[in-house]
Amino acid sequence: MITGKNNIGFELSGEGKKTFSAVNPDNFTEIDNSFFSATADEVEQALAKSEVAFEQYRLTTGKDKADFLEKIADELLALGDVLVQRAVKETGLPEARIIGERGRTVGQLKMFAELVRDGSWIEATIDTGIPGREPLPKPDLRKLLVPIGPVVVFGASNFPLAFSTAGGDTASALAGGNTVIVKAHSSHPGTSELVASAIIEAARKTGMPDGVFSHLQDAGFSVGQQLVTASEVKAVTFTGSFKGGKALFDLANTRKEPIPFFAEMGSTNPIILLPGALKDNPSELAKMIAGSITLGSGQFCTNPGLLIGVDNTLLEPFKQCLGEEISAIASSTMLNKRILDNYEQKKSEAIRQNSVISLSNNSDDSENKGTPLVASVESEVFVTNPKLQEEVFGPYSLVVNCSDRTQLDHVVDQLKGQLTVTIMGTPEDLEEFGNQIEKLKNKAGRIIFNGVPTGVEVCPSMQHGGPFPATTDPRFTSVGTSAIRRFVRPLSFQGWPDHLLPAELQESNPLDIWRLYNNEWTKSN
Amino acid sequence: MITGKNNIGFELSGEGKKTFSAVNPDNFTEIDNSFFSATADEVEQALAKSEVAFEQYRLTTGKDKADFLEKIADELLALGDVLVQRAVKETGLPEARIIGERGRTVGQLKMFAELVRDGSWIEATIDTGIPGREPLPKPDLRKLLVPIGPVVVFGASNFPLAFSTAGGDTASALAGGNTVIVKAHSSHPGTSELVASAIIEAARKTGMPDGVFSHLQDAGFSVGQQLVTASEVKAVTFTGSFKGGKALFDLANTRKEPIPFFAEMGSTNPIILLPGALKDNPSELAKMIAGSITLGSGQFCTNPGLLIGVDNTLLEPFKQCLGEEISAIASSTMLNKRILDNYEQKKSEAIRQNSVISLSNNSDDSENKGTPLVASVESEVFVTNPKLQEEVFGPYSLVVNCSDRTQLDHVVDQLKGQLTVTIMGTPEDLEEFGNQIEKLKNKAGRIIFNGVPTGVEVCPSMQHGGPFPATTDPRFTSVGTSAIRRFVRPLSFQGWPDHLLPAELQESNPLDIWRLYNNEWTKSN
Repeated sequence: MITGKNNIGFELSGEGKKTFSAVNPDNFTEIDNSFFSATADEVEQALAKSEVAFEQYRLTTGKDKADFLEKIADELLALGDVLVQRAVKETGLPEARIIGERGRTVGQLKMFAELVRDGSWIEATIDTGIPGREPLPKPDLRKLLVPIGPVVVFGASNFPLAFSTAGGDTASALAGGNTVIVKAHSSHPGTSELVASAIIEAARKTGMPDGVFSHLQDAGFSVGQQLVTASEVKAVTFTGSFKGGKALFDLANTRKEPIPFFAEMGSTNPIILLPGALKDNPSELAKMIAGSITLGSGQFCTNPGLLIGVDNTLLEPFKQCLGEEISAIASSTMLNKRILDNYEQKKSEAIRQNSVISLSNNSDDSENKGTPLVASVESEVFVTNPKLQEEVFGPYSLVVNCSDRTQLDHVVDQLKGQLTVTIMGTPEDLEEFGNQIEKLKNKAGRIIFNGVPTGVEVCPSMQHGGPFPATTDPRFTSVGTSAIRRFVRPLSFQGWPDHLLPAELQESNPLDIWRLYNNEWTKSN
Repeated sequence: MITGKNNIGFELSGEGKKTFSAVNPDNFTEIDNSFFSATADEVEQALAKSEVAFEQYRLTTGKDKADFLEKIADELLALGDVLVQRAVKETGLPEARIIGERGRTVGQLKMFAELVRDGSWIEATIDTGIPGREPLPKPDLRKLLVPIGPVVVFGASNFPLAFSTAGGDTASALAGGNTVIVKAHSSHPGTSELVASAIIEAARKTGMPDGVFSHLQDAGFSVGQQLVTASEVKAVTFTGSFKGGKALFDLANTRKEPIPFFAEMGSTNPIILLPGALKDNPSELAKMIAGSITLGSGQFCTNPGLLIGVDNTLLEPFKQCLGEEISAIASSTMLNKRILDNYEQKKSEAIRQNSVISLSNNSDDSENKGTPLVASVESEVFVTNPKLQEEVFGPYSLVVNCSDRTQLDHVVDQLKGQLTVTIMGTPEDLEEFGNQIEKLKNKAGRIIFNGVPTGVEVCPSMQHGGPFPATTDPRFTSVGTSAIRRFVRPLSFQGWPDHLLPAELQESNPLDIWRLYNNEWTKSN
């Protein structure tokens, strides 16, 4: 079923001389198939098709887009165990996780299908005219959201399904009426190709235009660079490291025409351990947090890499429990050799810093696996050593000991923008540390009370994004229904004949959607 | 009343050695007062105050922000005729226009006051938890919009009130809970200072923190450059030329931390003259369009600089009428010498291009005034000469003659992103030229039928923005209630105790706002 070729719209193409293979991260051996890196010419073809298809696809009704998205979900499931096993082989993630992630991916596609079938997402806003207004007549104005054009999606290494070929970025961009070109992540090219074939199949079956979706492989940087600087492209999304995201963001800034570039990058996702949380049951708290640190080998954007305690006496038993919990957790396969090497290097670097003490003692005997580690440091050292403030992507976390509130203030002031901040404590703690909590609200996209940051619910109220360096634009989210807003812009119609308006704006509200009509939310007019 | 000093929060400061004066554009003589360009140190002070004040101001309730905004409106009106006369003297705009613009400015402040007093703008989105959900519990998640931080607003030359010190950018940024630093436009420094004093007075009277607003003068570029690259600044807005906007945008892109930079820049605002519009009453159409071209000396962002006809036979009488109308319109004072010189130069350049024919014959005898001009060119020439496609800021418009639909297609394909596109014709024309209209919808923020693009209604359904180069981000507007979205970001609360949530998110909905509650818009829960 895997051809190794690129999908240039409905056509399979493998014209290039450069090929690469996927590598099984369990043993670092190549997996049979080889994949053609897309040539500059193939990238051009995909861009041209995407631009042409956009002119047709952007006019597709919400109902038809919903059918397309649901068909993608069906085709994805129809790939069955072939997809699951390929993903397991390419990522080293357990089968249950891949099956769970497939469920989430299918759920996202269906959520966006529901959103565009319902239609209210389009923010229809109507102000009826007042021809007799003095000194000037008030025109009839009606606004809705329209797609912006071809969107480039970079697949992420850590979510081979939910943030890759048919992940949330693709689903939200297609839902918004944009055509999509995916640059597959080279860490799971076979998984990506299988998913791409499901999207292409769904597009054919639901009558979508050739070029609504293209899928390009590359083990290097040239395809990504060509896409980011192409004039046809009107938005880009990226999920990955700060280094990778910032480099592409800077490249996009050299474009003649600026475009939205949404990168979701690094985050240390601090957990603040307030006294009330440490008092009652430190061992249970440690167990919960240890689970979050090591879930999926710690390879989540929301992995808690920083635990900040405010009371050293209460913190001691917790640290001991946490060390024991982590020590009992086995090493595990990481997504690829680069991530593993990077993890081991950054972890070693962190632990070598002055005054950093290891809390766990896992045996580090497996060459091909990431070994968890938790360490501890005094807050005075932490605030003066930038090395300790960096994200270590993997099953690692650093406990920062603050002996009083002033020290906590210093640590909080030092924190950069985050996807999440978590507070563990009692409601009374929340009030007592109100000043610090307020500051933290200003530094994160999501603030959690007595939970763990891993596990990102897909729903309208989710904000998965945050101030820089967590993302390049905190005003948007990459998870949940609002993710569609990254790829749409408002268009106002002034004085337009009613029957020639988009259905969403016609006076009789034929689609029965929620609208802001003369400043009131209503389904009638 | 005019001190010539900068407002560093509540303090007046004029420490610099560089000063400049306003110039009366009627006669190019300096107006009495001189103004202190802010020093680097004064800019630093304003930034520091803005950052500190933000921590307090962002927690201000909607009701208190509304009081502040309304008080600004009151204080602005209380400046009375002093403000009006100063603005007339500094801009050369007629008194009636300034009074009208003051009305619009006051209206904008009151609109945002109403918006934040009502509170529903905050997009409260609630998904209640399902503790028993399998395989994992669903957390309680609640999201709202929060301010992003200190905002820098560049005053615009062409709207001394409505797009300057207390204009729509300042009003929407303050409404969103952000502190504001205005870089006053050097073309109307006295007007700006008077308005700034009204804002400061309002801030004092309503108990807003020192630093909620600062106001800096500079006749050069250094203050603007320092502000755009300052780490304290979290967003910038600019309204002006493409050259100025793009230069600041590029400068902002060199920052370590990327920030939203919303620039509203050039636009030729094409009017498409379909056959039905030309048939009936070409002289009335010409009169209406001539009025729009020359309104305010053509110094509007939405000034129609391009008129595209599809039928040469029908176009001839219209062109003749338009030439006559324009020829009868007197030269008028432009905003400043730079704008006047630039206008005369660009106009001369355009008319000197091969095959461009003048349609009007105004006598060009006033040295200090901008003289209107309409010219005409065949579409084949237009599409191959980029000089003719550029905006000429002032009372100028170019009629492009397309002899058939293919030529219209070529012209439409050539058009860049626009703030507005206007269609003149019958509903039948709209249907007949459906393909072209669809393409045009993809190139503009607002599309007008049988109206003129000048006159930008301030209301929820207005989109004043558009694809590049009209703006740097077509997903936002600088006019209307949605302008607030440029300066706010979503924040999600997960598992938070109800009584410690912001009032907007508490289960009982104490503020009685519209909320998306478990995917339904409602004021109850």
